[in-house]
Amino acid sequence: MADTITTATQSNQLLEKEPRVAVMGVSGYSGGELVRLLLHHPKLTTNPLLLGRSETNLHLGDLQPQLATADGLGDPIHPFSWDLLTEKGINLLFLATPHEQSREWVPEALARNIRVVDLSGAWRLQEAKNRDVYKLTDANPEEAAKIQTEAVFGAPELHAEAIAGARLVANPGCYSTSVILALAPLVKAGLLDLTHGIICDSKSGVSGAGKAATAKTHFMYAADNLSAYGVFSHRHTGELLEQLHLTEDQIQFTPHLLPIPRGILSTIYARLATPGTPEQIETAFRTFYAGRSMVRIHATPGLPQIQHIVRTNFCDIGFQLAKDGKRLVIVSCLDNLLKGAAGQAVQNMNLMVGWNESEGLL
Amino acid sequence: MADTITTATQSNQLLEKEPRVAVMGVSGYSGGELVRLLLHHPKLTTNPLLLGRSETNLHLGDLQPQLATADGLGDPIHPFSWDLLTEKGINLLFLATPHEQSREWVPEALARNIRVVDLSGAWRLQEAKNRDVYKLTDANPEEAAKIQTEAVFGAPELHAEAIAGARLVANPGCYSTSVILALAPLVKAGLLDLTHGIICDSKSGVSGAGKAATAKTHFMYAADNLSAYGVFSHRHTGELLEQLHLTEDQIQFTPHLLPIPRGILSTIYARLATPGTPEQIETAFRTFYAGRSMVRIHATPGLPQIQHIVRTNFCDIGFQLAKDGKRLVIVSCLDNLLKGAAGQAVQNMNLMVGWNESEGLL
Amino acid sequence: MADTITTATQSNQLLEKEPRVAVMGVSGYSGGELVRLLLHHPKLTTNPLLLGRSETNLHLGDLQPQLATADGLGDPIHPFSWDLLTEKGINLLFLATPHEQSREWVPEALARNIRVVDLSGAWRLQEAKNRDVYKLTDANPEEAAKIQTEAVFGAPELHAEAIAGARLVANPGCYSTSVILALAPLVKAGLLDLTHGIICDSKSGVSGAGKAATAKTHFMYAADNLSAYGVFSHRHTGELLEQLHLTEDQIQFTPHLLPIPRGILSTIYARLATPGTPEQIETAFRTFYAGRSMVRIHATPGLPQIQHIVRTNFCDIGFQLAKDGKRLVIVSCLDNLLKGAAGQAVQNMNLMVGWNESEGLL
Amino acid sequence: MADTITTATQSNQLLEKEPRVAVMGVSGYSGGELVRLLLHHPKLTTNPLLLGRSETNLHLGDLQPQLATADGLGDPIHPFSWDLLTEKGINLLFLATPHEQSREWVPEALARNIRVVDLSGAWRLQEAKNRDVYKLTDANPEEAAKIQTEAVFGAPELHAEAIAGARLVANPGCYSTSVILALAPLVKAGLLDLTHGIICDSKSGVSGAGKAATAKTHFMYAADNLSAYGVFSHRHTGELLEQLHLTEDQIQFTPHLLPIPRGILSTIYARLATPGTPEQIETAFRTFYAGRSMVRIHATPGLPQIQHIVRTNFCDIGFQLAKDGKRLVIVSCLDNLLKGAAGQAVQNMNLMVGWNESEGLL
Repeated sequence: MADTITTATQSNQLLEKEPRVAVMGVSGYSGGELVRLLLHHPKLTTNPLLLGRSETNLHLGDLQPQLATADGLGDPIHPFSWDLLTEKGINLLFLATPHEQSREWVPEALARNIRVVDLSGAWRLQEAKNRDVYKLTDANPEEAAKIQTEAVFGAPELHAEAIAGARLVANPGCYSTSVILALAPLVKAGLLDLTHGIICDSKSGVSGAGKAATAKTHFMYAADNLSAYGVFSHRHTGELLEQLHLTEDQIQFTPHLLPIPRGILSTIYARLATPGTPEQIETAFRTFYAGRSMVRIHATPGLPQIQHIVRTNFCDIGFQLAKDGKRLVIVSCLDNLLKGAAGQAVQNMNLMVGWNESEGLL
Repeated sequence: MADTITTATQSNQLLEKEPRVAVMGVSGYSGGELVRLLLHHPKLTTNPLLLGRSETNLHLGDLQPQLATADGLGDPIHPFSWDLLTEKGINLLFLATPHEQSREWVPEALARNIRVVDLSGAWRLQEAKNRDVYKLTDANPEEAAKIQTEAVFGAPELHAEAIAGARLVANPGCYSTSVILALAPLVKAGLLDLTHGIICDSKSGVSGAGKAATAKTHFMYAADNLSAYGVFSHRHTGELLEQLHLTEDQIQFTPHLLPIPRGILSTIYARLATPGTPEQIETAFRTFYAGRSMVRIHATPGLPQIQHIVRTNFCDIGFQLAKDGKRLVIVSCLDNLLKGAAGQAVQNMNLMVGWNESEGLL
Repeated sequence: MADTITTATQSNQLLEKEPRVAVMGVSGYSGGELVRLLLHHPKLTTNPLLLGRSETNLHLGDLQPQLATADGLGDPIHPFSWDLLTEKGINLLFLATPHEQSREWVPEALARNIRVVDLSGAWRLQEAKNRDVYKLTDANPEEAAKIQTEAVFGAPELHAEAIAGARLVANPGCYSTSVILALAPLVKAGLLDLTHGIICDSKSGVSGAGKAATAKTHFMYAADNLSAYGVFSHRHTGELLEQLHLTEDQIQFTPHLLPIPRGILSTIYARLATPGTPEQIETAFRTFYAGRSMVRIHATPGLPQIQHIVRTNFCDIGFQLAKDGKRLVIVSCLDNLLKGAAGQAVQNMNLMVGWNESEGLL
Repeated sequence: MADTITTATQSNQLLEKEPRVAVMGVSGYSGGELVRLLLHHPKLTTNPLLLGRSETNLHLGDLQPQLATADGLGDPIHPFSWDLLTEKGINLLFLATPHEQSREWVPEALARNIRVVDLSGAWRLQEAKNRDVYKLTDANPEEAAKIQTEAVFGAPELHAEAIAGARLVANPGCYSTSVILALAPLVKAGLLDLTHGIICDSKSGVSGAGKAATAKTHFMYAADNLSAYGVFSHRHTGELLEQLHLTEDQIQFTPHLLPIPRGILSTIYARLATPGTPEQIETAFRTFYAGRSMVRIHATPGLPQIQHIVRTNFCDIGFQLAKDGKRLVIVSCLDNLLKGAAGQAVQNMNLMVGWNESEGLL
């Protein structure tokens, strides 16, 4: 491992001059979407460097046939090597890798002046007990702890400034993004009665379960079906707790597996601290997201649907308030592979480089 | 209208001797399933009489091609007429008809000594304000009010005895069945903290929306999508309130449209009045449903899924209790066309005739 | 292995007296459907004996949750043993097992006076070169060759009499059934111009690919997709050649993977030897299938659809003839798990026992 | 109607200077995709003018919610008027309108020096008998006949030069595109034995059926189903005949309705005139499509799938040749809303303006 640690400012400067990006992990769903976005990004002047673990003699189109061109299979996929990153002058690395691998590689990347957007869950959680679920180990715990503190949770609507200056952006979970964006404006404004627990009933398409062929990703299991899972135990729960500053008694999250390829819809139940009006709630949302380009607020009582956000980087939010002025139902939707993963990663890159956050995403 | 009103006992006796059944409304999804079940019912000795509004020269297979046989299109569909019912000696009439029609026809059927299982929402709700949503009108309000009082809510697991003796069984809503069966054992045992509102997040397949071709039943709308609707206003809410004796502040119901043909899954969030154990909850369920054949309780922490109840008349129920012993998530599943409609109607018929409730349903 | 070989007549007599059936392989899709049918079969007086390879302490509901009852998980699954079959007096064994296993076990079963309905492809093909695709090996090739000759291809509409007396019924492939039933009446009547190759373009739901979790059965691969596979090489081709007495130049078969759980539709293109009328074709079909209960012929120009045969044991057939009286398009549909597997197996059992072929299947 | 008729060259010059485009018909699936492509087109300097028939006070996001932005519902939709087109300086009009309307409006547009890309079937067919299926009528038959002759069939891979200079481009049908692109290279090279009829078995997603809510677009009809339709009568057949110069005896086309939102796969069966090799066929394809950016040829024996072309403007083509060197199976895939409609329309616009044909489409 390199022994010099650059500061965020230094690597920032490198990046702003001329971002050269690499993607490690191009075979999965998020990795594929990420490469697609980067290839068509209007501000990037070079193609992303494509990296894989063991692939040899493969090109992009071998792993992501939809990205082949009429001319052929596209860029080659290189076996990952730090030397190659150096040789290619990479200054921004996207990790679409398993949690363990991200945890292991980030210190080295930072040591080499390479900024990182990590799409795994490895660096999202500041509290060790929340991170337990990932069973991560660190070769150098002290250094890892330091980096952990430095890691910025990559929700651009919450932490744009920190992201802009970050060396390490921990790209949020897909479920978490849908819930956090739906609740942050109200929680932060103190509008909710937290003695009544907030219920987050979320539903996700199958791509959220990853590309591994398992009993649960079998078409015959998922199709024409719906199932709840991870009740009281899903690993995205920690992100809700930390980002919204809530306790497990205050917020409860249940994911479900939807029989669709992609898209998340979260139905969120809360109560207002004091009776309010739909206008007040809508204003709270619109104020919070003023100037942000990737969140669309529905005029109440309109509610978003998965079909309108799929293949976009938008998070759509709508709500209805009961006649009692207290009981609130919020619905938020996003594409788990875009706003919930690759799209948000590019949005974070845009902020890190100093571009408009929606560059290449509309 | 006939001027003699028979008592429940009298028509009961007629029925028990030799049930002769008719189905009005065989073109829809529930009607089709109902006819299928009745045709294969091992105790019925005659085919159901098939009735339609305006169909002429049609046979069953014209409207329900899956029910044709190698010999042809099956039984003819007769235009509805009271005289025909009399002529055929019908003593049990299934109404798979719009609410208004059911409301209009039931008095006449009862007056003619014909017992009725009504699959519409016309007679399910005792409180006028809950019924408002159906915008029903009565030619003879006094008589209708009397019949309303007599109508039995056709949830066999709650009202078996009353159903057995009923002249009019109001077959429950599909969503309502999934929620009521999941909550009744706990609510009736006083196990829940009702100051914390119960949240019922339900998801249904598209057949629940009926056969009419509308923007929302278009494949392109429903497929690869999920949407919430009827927030704070779905007409099944009244059934929850009446059957569980709860107020709108105590129970909240949100339906969603799933991209699948059939099946309902309800995820229900409640809190125990005092901290308990999973064993206590499981015992409460098993005790309540002891001896019942159409409800399957999952051993905790097992949760039911739609795939395992589709095309069955089962309602499957499972739950998980948080470590705090208070926060409870219940999941219940059923097939909206069977346990949520036609299957439950046959189950009610079985009770009305004195047969085993699962006859023809396993 | 037992050293006595009973004749078909002898084992027939045993079976007719009192059929006692066992199912080996209850974990797959066909096995599950088979057990469901047998459990509800109105003529069987005992439950099928459930057998598995390595399962211990499992019950039916563990592997097929949809078949659990309110009372519990149903019958136990026993590890397979010949002694157990003897002990239980089994005289009819269904093999829902891999090809190799079926090839290995059938000789022993027959030696023990146990008739067999084999759902695998192990015994369907008489010609060795057609069987090559299964890469089968025989411990005793001479005995296997003898048994092979005796094996009856289990298409009840073609070989009812032979099936009735068979010791070994080789249940047909799902694709093959859809094609053979659509063509046999015309080919056998010499109505087709075989110099123009017959084209069979078939499409099947994902359950046809089996329960193994693979890249191709992943929801993300199959959903919203369609793909051709096995062009010129699918192993069901041999069944078409042998049953229809055609050459590879005369009939061509291409399967496709449909994004649905179950159902096969075959679109078949042929030319009449001499110009004919739709009436002639329809008559040929109706004559051939006269008295058969599991094939439904559509009045031309009506065409069958998958939705109307799913969850039934019917094979539906329709056709259209071009104005030139020569170009013919036939469409046939069936449920690959029922008429294409478990349902046809039960139909074969019915014939073997002397019951009506549709017993337990309507 | 304006009385001056400009030449193609004149309107061409106008367009090349500064294309200003309008879309009539933005509510449908193709219209929505077209607007999306035009809004993000890198060469267009102004937004497309959005036109509707009767819509008032509507914005893009009202009809196409997925195209709303965080700022609001997007551009207004104007009631169609020729004056508005003039006022806005429109020189290229996309018609995503019913056939009758396109037939009526094109003469006026051309008279007003406005070039047209018509997505309907109104102008695709040169032979009156092929056009009969559309039941079109012309106010001025003589003028219409003249315009018909001038209309260019908008298959860029076949008619790029004519398209570049065309005043009226008749955008091809979705099915036709998939079949024509798969066959043109071989038919034109004389490689096929046309005495053996070519069979085109095509399957399309439901968006191909349009946005109207009908019995056949109901989710319950289309989902988990497959059905053939339009056998011997589909209106795209004429396009195959005219573009490939074949007779009805030489090519036969059967469409099917797939249970997916979008995508077409055509499986095409033909025989080579003389036995050949896979290499020869692949070379024929690659030669024909050399330099074209929107057709991807698979190296044999690879076959394309719908999943890899959905949401792209590619037509993917693959094939396999039997060992006899004669029997050929070609598979082609495209997205019916893109390469089969809106994408191809933009591709045509690119050629008409003189841009790279793939501009805005990758």
